[in-house]
Amino acid sequence: MTLRAKTYHQLFASSRRDGRLTLTDRVVLVAILASVVVAIIGTERAFATENRSAILWAEFGFGLFFLAEYCTRLWAVAERAGPEGDWTKRFAWMRSFFALIDLFVVIVTLVPFVLTGAPILRLLRLFRLAALLKFGRFSMALKALGSAVIERRYDLYVTGALAMVLLLGGATALYWAEGKVQPEAFGSIPRAMWWSVITLTTVGYGDVSPLTPLGKVLAAFVAIGGIGLVAMPTGIIAAAFSDAMQAYRDKIDPADEENPMP
Amino acid sequence: MTLRAKTYHQLFASSRRDGRLTLTDRVVLVAILASVVVAIIGTERAFATENRSAILWAEFGFGLFFLAEYCTRLWAVAERAGPEGDWTKRFAWMRSFFALIDLFVVIVTLVPFVLTGAPILRLLRLFRLAALLKFGRFSMALKALGSAVIERRYDLYVTGALAMVLLLGGATALYWAEGKVQPEAFGSIPRAMWWSVITLTTVGYGDVSPLTPLGKVLAAFVAIGGIGLVAMPTGIIAAAFSDAMQAYRDKIDPADEENPMP
Amino acid sequence: MTLRAKTYHQLFASSRRDGRLTLTDRVVLVAILASVVVAIIGTERAFATENRSAILWAEFGFGLFFLAEYCTRLWAVAERAGPEGDWTKRFAWMRSFFALIDLFVVIVTLVPFVLTGAPILRLLRLFRLAALLKFGRFSMALKALGSAVIERRYDLYVTGALAMVLLLGGATALYWAEGKVQPEAFGSIPRAMWWSVITLTTVGYGDVSPLTPLGKVLAAFVAIGGIGLVAMPTGIIAAAFSDAMQAYRDKIDPADEENPMP
Amino acid sequence: MTLRAKTYHQLFASSRRDGRLTLTDRVVLVAILASVVVAIIGTERAFATENRSAILWAEFGFGLFFLAEYCTRLWAVAERAGPEGDWTKRFAWMRSFFALIDLFVVIVTLVPFVLTGAPILRLLRLFRLAALLKFGRFSMALKALGSAVIERRYDLYVTGALAMVLLLGGATALYWAEGKVQPEAFGSIPRAMWWSVITLTTVGYGDVSPLTPLGKVLAAFVAIGGIGLVAMPTGIIAAAFSDAMQAYRDKIDPADEENPMP
Repeated sequence: MTLRAKTYHQLFASSRRDGRLTLTDRVVLVAILASVVVAIIGTERAFATENRSAILWAEFGFGLFFLAEYCTRLWAVAERAGPEGDWTKRFAWMRSFFALIDLFVVIVTLVPFVLTGAPILRLLRLFRLAALLKFGRFSMALKALGSAVIERRYDLYVTGALAMVLLLGGATALYWAEGKVQPEAFGSIPRAMWWSVITLTTVGYGDVSPLTPLGKVLAAFVAIGGIGLVAMPTGIIAAAFSDAMQAYRDKIDPADEENPMP
Repeated sequence: MTLRAKTYHQLFASSRRDGRLTLTDRVVLVAILASVVVAIIGTERAFATENRSAILWAEFGFGLFFLAEYCTRLWAVAERAGPEGDWTKRFAWMRSFFALIDLFVVIVTLVPFVLTGAPILRLLRLFRLAALLKFGRFSMALKALGSAVIERRYDLYVTGALAMVLLLGGATALYWAEGKVQPEAFGSIPRAMWWSVITLTTVGYGDVSPLTPLGKVLAAFVAIGGIGLVAMPTGIIAAAFSDAMQAYRDKIDPADEENPMP
Repeated sequence: MTLRAKTYHQLFASSRRDGRLTLTDRVVLVAILASVVVAIIGTERAFATENRSAILWAEFGFGLFFLAEYCTRLWAVAERAGPEGDWTKRFAWMRSFFALIDLFVVIVTLVPFVLTGAPILRLLRLFRLAALLKFGRFSMALKALGSAVIERRYDLYVTGALAMVLLLGGATALYWAEGKVQPEAFGSIPRAMWWSVITLTTVGYGDVSPLTPLGKVLAAFVAIGGIGLVAMPTGIIAAAFSDAMQAYRDKIDPADEENPMP
Repeated sequence: MTLRAKTYHQLFASSRRDGRLTLTDRVVLVAILASVVVAIIGTERAFATENRSAILWAEFGFGLFFLAEYCTRLWAVAERAGPEGDWTKRFAWMRSFFALIDLFVVIVTLVPFVLTGAPILRLLRLFRLAALLKFGRFSMALKALGSAVIERRYDLYVTGALAMVLLLGGATALYWAEGKVQPEAFGSIPRAMWWSVITLTTVGYGDVSPLTPLGKVLAAFVAIGGIGLVAMPTGIIAAAFSDAMQAYRDKIDPADEENPMP
């Protein structure tokens, strides 16, 4: 067995089939998470100026790592079964979903080194999280969740419409009751909608809250209505998620039986 | 096939039966939502004074559009099957639920142009949302939800009574513990009920909160009680909604089978 | 049929059996709710001083009404089937659960007129809500809920113990991290428990919140733990309530069949 | 029956088998809870300095009590059935899970008397709560809960990953929208994550909240996303807990049948 064949089996063979993580997968997973953590703490100014060169070297290292991973995969994919030539297989792979994600990750990691002008570009690095989709298990679970949500799309339309009516009704009620007293917070319906969203989701920052007795009575009904607003989509999403995980386990488990070795 | 017959089929034929949206439905839906958005942002003073004439023209346009829709339906409904005369059919349609909603929408859109005195009349325009009920699918889902809630009305009575006792008990406890210290917020039971509602729904603005150790201990128990207050109606509403959506799908699906073309 | 027999049937006969409300029940229910509302708004000082005599007369009226109801029941209960003498039946009724509640309501309504010294006694009037238990339906639903909760008592013990450990752990973590910085709010574990309860129930007033980075990291974990704290008892209570309402409907429905007239 | 045999039966025999609490168990349970309460209120400076000697004596008493319990168990365990010598049985017991917990509790209670330097050591006393695990019922319920959670570990991985993406996305959005306006609260992604956690868990302290219109629009979407964040793990944990309690009852009930005496 040649080195290329061994590499191919390590990088491609098992992880896609049964969703288990190979050693290479684990190394890549750690690299992805570490690179995201570095990108996050790199936004903290005090830390970033102190450790400027360390962060630059780390980012450069991650860029090289992801580039090397991409090139190795491109090199090894020629081992894929089939009568086509090496480069035909390679071009076929390059157009696949997982290869495009890999390429995307390489690009968002390296672009900020080339275009250093806008610091906002550095936020692109967070899209490295897309690389999580490479892991068969996570990708399959998301696909199952997506199809479960689509199956319940009417439920979500109706819930969404009811929630919009509740949000809008609450905002209108408090615009009417508090608009004169607190023009900054309730002086128009769009302003009052900020209060409405924060109350109906039960977050309740308290930066805006009604001051008049009438406003408080209306706000109390809106807050109680929020229980229903949360109850209906919660039920739908929980049921959709539960169905999705069942579908996902049904996909995982037969693979486990066929290939019981971890 | 005459123009009137074509118009009739486009406006009336399919949308009521299987709940699917025809092209006309989609246009009307966009017009409803756009007109509501204009009415909402028109309440923001800075924006409204700057774009006074644009908003006026848009509102006038929506008024004409809804009026034209109503008149076209009135004209085309004469095509309805039956031996009666054209105007007999038209009067019959005018008394139907959907026609009354259409008329209501035309009125709430145009009345603020006639009676310009009170700016509060402009809020009437938000009732244009009632036009969503014209869409068979949404109307059916609401009917299903309504009947599912009615079936569980005893559950809601009992939950409501328990919640009222909890609200009142919490308010009384904090009126007793904090009434002397914070007379503005807890100086009477009705005042303390504002705190009680905002705590039991877990919104928690923080505009009023207990200051004394005794008040904090009592408030902690009220907050923990809030978990139960939310749990019971959440379970009922989620179950009612789930039943309603099942009943709604059962109604939708056979129609889909009979008339599988979108 | 004598007046006493008619009164007996109106007051006693049907309401206990199938849980439906007779006309008398409805009158009594309105009187109870009205008397509670008067007691509540009577605590608002501005309103109470302005309407002093109106409130006094209303309270006196409610007292007389509840007393008259009690006496009428005492008089009419002699019609109850059985060979015993009138007063034997009356004494038997006086010792029954519902008669004791009625007596309790009369006492808490009239005591504040006799002992006018302590204004706290007026809060006793809120216990008039106990009269709701007289309505067969509500009393049965509560009994069903109670037995469903008792059946799941181990679940509640375990949840309660886990919640206590989480509350205590959170309070200890923030006492350790923030105790020096905010001695007023986190200077001891009992003080930190106020923050812990308000965070874990997701109320979040914001009167106390961590200021140090370490405190924020710990508080973030406590807040996420709150999702689990709410999830477990919510599931138990919702399931217990759902079982209770099923048991309650099973009790109600046969009665409805036997006696289908409202 | 010797005193040692009686002691053995009281301390060891029944409580482990069916999870019921013997008289000794109840005494130990009260001692554990009382000792934790003393440790908690001992952190309140005003109370601690006033009752210094009382707290010291109480702590010393609890230490002696737990030590005595440990020694008594060590002495009585020699009664355990088996041909080995007394000390062989004792050493076997000392290496068991429950004996190690007992020893741990004795140590965390007595260590602060020996090493009086660091007041932080006194927090160790809270670990006395670990002694709750000695009670068969609680220990079994936790084991059942643990295995139910392990069975659903993929669901929790996926939920956790989605929640992390949502947390990170929300923090990045508000860092981008509000970072310039409120550098203290949103000036870096790690800072914005504090806001993100407190919003998505719907705690909503309100110590940090967006000020710009764009920030408010983004925050509204994050708050609505929080409904889903809570819905998914809530469903998983509630289902896991429900399964766990079923498994736990299945374990408890047969024991009750075998040994119906309390």
